[in-house]
Amino acid sequence: MASGKTTPGGEPPARTTGGPPDTAVLAPPAGTLTAGRALTGYLREQATAFLRGLGLRSEREGQADALLRGSARRIAAVLHTYAPLTEPGWAEALRGELGWLTSTLGREPQHTGRLARLLEALRRLSTAGVPESVLAEVEGGGTGSGPLALGAARAAALLERQLTLARTRAHSAALQAVGSSRFHGLADSMAVLASEVPLTGRAADPAPAVLPPLAAQAYQRLCDAADALPLGRAALPYNAEAVQASLGAELTADLQDAPWHQVRILLRLARYAAEVPGVEPYGDDRLVEAAQVLGRHREAAESAAAVAAAARTPRIAPATAYALGVLHADQRHEVEAARFAFSRLWQGLPPAPEGDRPLPGPRG
Amino acid sequence: MASGKTTPGGEPPARTTGGPPDTAVLAPPAGTLTAGRALTGYLREQATAFLRGLGLRSEREGQADALLRGSARRIAAVLHTYAPLTEPGWAEALRGELGWLTSTLGREPQHTGRLARLLEALRRLSTAGVPESVLAEVEGGGTGSGPLALGAARAAALLERQLTLARTRAHSAALQAVGSSRFHGLADSMAVLASEVPLTGRAADPAPAVLPPLAAQAYQRLCDAADALPLGRAALPYNAEAVQASLGAELTADLQDAPWHQVRILLRLARYAAEVPGVEPYGDDRLVEAAQVLGRHREAAESAAAVAAAARTPRIAPATAYALGVLHADQRHEVEAARFAFSRLWQGLPPAPEGDRPLPGPRG
Repeated sequence: MASGKTTPGGEPPARTTGGPPDTAVLAPPAGTLTAGRALTGYLREQATAFLRGLGLRSEREGQADALLRGSARRIAAVLHTYAPLTEPGWAEALRGELGWLTSTLGREPQHTGRLARLLEALRRLSTAGVPESVLAEVEGGGTGSGPLALGAARAAALLERQLTLARTRAHSAALQAVGSSRFHGLADSMAVLASEVPLTGRAADPAPAVLPPLAAQAYQRLCDAADALPLGRAALPYNAEAVQASLGAELTADLQDAPWHQVRILLRLARYAAEVPGVEPYGDDRLVEAAQVLGRHREAAESAAAVAAAARTPRIAPATAYALGVLHADQRHEVEAARFAFSRLWQGLPPAPEGDRPLPGPRG
Repeated sequence: MASGKTTPGGEPPARTTGGPPDTAVLAPPAGTLTAGRALTGYLREQATAFLRGLGLRSEREGQADALLRGSARRIAAVLHTYAPLTEPGWAEALRGELGWLTSTLGREPQHTGRLARLLEALRRLSTAGVPESVLAEVEGGGTGSGPLALGAARAAALLERQLTLARTRAHSAALQAVGSSRFHGLADSMAVLASEVPLTGRAADPAPAVLPPLAAQAYQRLCDAADALPLGRAALPYNAEAVQASLGAELTADLQDAPWHQVRILLRLARYAAEVPGVEPYGDDRLVEAAQVLGRHREAAESAAAVAAAARTPRIAPATAYALGVLHADQRHEVEAARFAFSRLWQGLPPAPEGDRPLPGPRG
């Protein structure tokens, strides 16, 4: 707790250590932004975005939900990273509710995206890969013919049916959630978030002394987890690691993918931590790119799992099952391609900071 | 024909141009190896290897057939590259017989290799890809469980049955071929090969003036064909080109693969051309490596086709078809990985020579 850090001027900052949680926003020493004020300012901004999303919902549901999810994710993330500044019981309860909401609202767009991804992949897999002019010269050639293409069409129809059903169910669940008293309780918490943050004594310290070290810890956790990934193997193209799991028990794919998914979450925490005023972001634009790459990693992994689930549908034709097998392997290769891209990106990123000392090297 | 080439000393070489083919080995001008003598020396060496293979056949069939095929391929290749030195009708007939033999004897080892490759791939695809220690901690985990693993086992059994049958048939066909009068005729040709090569007038020219330009043409044909490949796309890992064909008509895979197979053949011609005494090899060890890579390309492409054929077996279970689909896509990814490796290798090779001028740059 008492880290012995000093302000840029070299004097020990004025602060209360080890005291009981203080439920009011503490007044800053003259001219200094306190950590509590910086944090509550950010939370207010995000709560406002949340409420704006709520107001939009009757007109533009998709856009509104994206706003709701974005701000809920950010609030939950900064409450996690800056946990020493808020009362633990309160913060954990709120994070739990925010997690419920983001996962409930997130399912419908996930199913939509997954279906689009898989239909696009099937289209790509059924495409010739040779110029049309060459195909036109060959009798009986062209795309879309043969039993394989028939299997692809049937697989597409099966996936469309299953994922549309899943999407419809997710939509109903989201509607039900938004109409629930649980949701209304969460919306009320958002409306009063800025004024009701139960801060700890440490929140009265100047923001520059408190926030950067906590953000650095979040970045350090990201670095530790990323460095523990099998980056050496992933940096070799066509290493076949991600497809190893294609025909194993489903569990094995989950176990293999989990550390990568974990890094995706830590990456998000590190990025959101740096959005709080007074915290310099680590890394550079590659961190944003790395987040996108790991997003693709998750989408491909979950799409592969959806294909495996579809293949367990009783009484499907062998041609359909065959096409689903090709598609499953294709998505596992997309998983591997994302790992390859991440490993290249990550190995170009600045090294992890030592301890909780903030690194130089913000953007630009 | 009359190329205007001069010997290193600058004087026009003594030679006969445009005359009728000469069926005797021409005597060399004092102290100079003629092209005909260099070529027939190489052919004699290869014919001896062929006859040694023939003698071995009763004891060690596999080893003997590899010798027979290796020398038959080399003789056919140099007759092609150095075609202006021999009477066309004779050379083409002999090359036809040699081609018949190499393809007849090559089928059995191909089926053996294909089965081993596919069983190994199925094993890899069913393997966890997570440490055993992690799996051991998870209840019900581990490899080999679940419907996917069952499908993999059935797919392995199906491929084993089909490819073993194909291998047995190929073995019978090879036995029959070796016992045929057609084969005895070919063996007789081998026994008298060195003394009965019907050379053209150009074969009387000094070897250094005739052979290197013809070898350079072979290398040039290789370079032209390799440079026409989609190397830019192949050099990007996970470009998904080779898997595009996975669910298309079978023809489209063949059309996409054909230019790569063609380069594999041209590479072999260029390498064998350089085995004739007095010809400096082009490129370096990467040429050998490139040949291996394109060998893997062909094996993976043909293995994928064998998997697709197995998937057309009537009344297979959906789980089997699914595993075959995964395996097919995996082999098409191996095709892509080989293209990636080739494109990297090739782009590091020396540039193509201009015209038929021999390039400097032998090994070492």
